[in-house]
Amino acid sequence: MASVRIREAEEGDCGQILKLIRELAEYEKLSDQVQISEEALRADGFGEYRCLVADLPPAPGDTQGPRVVGYGLYYFIYSTWKGRTVYLEDIYVTPEYRGQGIGSKIIRRVAQVALDQGCSQFRLAVLDWNQRAMALYKALGAQDLTEAEGWHAFTFDGEAMRKLAGK
Amino acid sequence: MASVRIREAEEGDCGQILKLIRELAEYEKLSDQVQISEEALRADGFGEYRCLVADLPPAPGDTQGPRVVGYGLYYFIYSTWKGRTVYLEDIYVTPEYRGQGIGSKIIRRVAQVALDQGCSQFRLAVLDWNQRAMALYKALGAQDLTEAEGWHAFTFDGEAMRKLAGK
Repeated sequence: MASVRIREAEEGDCGQILKLIRELAEYEKLSDQVQISEEALRADGFGEYRCLVADLPPAPGDTQGPRVVGYGLYYFIYSTWKGRTVYLEDIYVTPEYRGQGIGSKIIRRVAQVALDQGCSQFRLAVLDWNQRAMALYKALGAQDLTEAEGWHAFTFDGEAMRKLAGK
Repeated sequence: MASVRIREAEEGDCGQILKLIRELAEYEKLSDQVQISEEALRADGFGEYRCLVADLPPAPGDTQGPRVVGYGLYYFIYSTWKGRTVYLEDIYVTPEYRGQGIGSKIIRRVAQVALDQGCSQFRLAVLDWNQRAMALYKALGAQDLTEAEGWHAFTFDGEAMRKLAGK
């Protein structure tokens, strides 16, 4: 199997990244929630977020360029308890490239970036039925804060926000 | 009771904000986790985060300046499903000023900022035993994502990150 490389995403990767964002949402059974477009992803990147991709070098004679088989999209958040923190919003590897340690490689790279940027923590969220992912994160040393401390995630959607804001 | 004003925090508020950060962590029974200093809060603000404060105008003859009785610290995150999103990291009102709608005022102001900045969502996290806060957020129109979809928050702390990064 061809060797997979982890690198910083570039603007030209946005189309392939969006395809994987949709695959991930389908895997998470929440694909109706994907409202992002390739244009938004391109316009917002990479000021709003940073992204790593796992790609395969093009085969000889292949004019399509490298094929993206995984990605990790992250940004910086701020903990009032511990300061600057990195947050991995998405991590995904296409089914045929799983089991090769690509996800772990992306996670390791994010940890390196986090330390280089002076972060004291590296956070992410996972769905409770995704036991495979939860087991991997725990094996890599992560703690389940929802289990340990009882954190619940809340969201106000667009309509709730407009009501709140009186708009 | 004196009227409370909601305004953007300034550098000179960092000492009072830190005091409230510690009070909130004590309220959440997790005060051993607060490692932030006033210097870090000052140095990191307000590039890493933004902060609203609820304050009381100084009484006549009071040389201490306005007294901060609540705060809401937030930043911008990025949802690959819905784009730019605001995240309210902390919201806190001192016990003697609760029940006056100050928390709701802070939340409304954050929703206004979020809409002004083109955000499609407004997120926050709450501890499951804090039923008072959960009830308030639901009454204001928020959805509990952990309950609805099963999201768990994970964290890698400093040592776990260093192991991951091979440092």
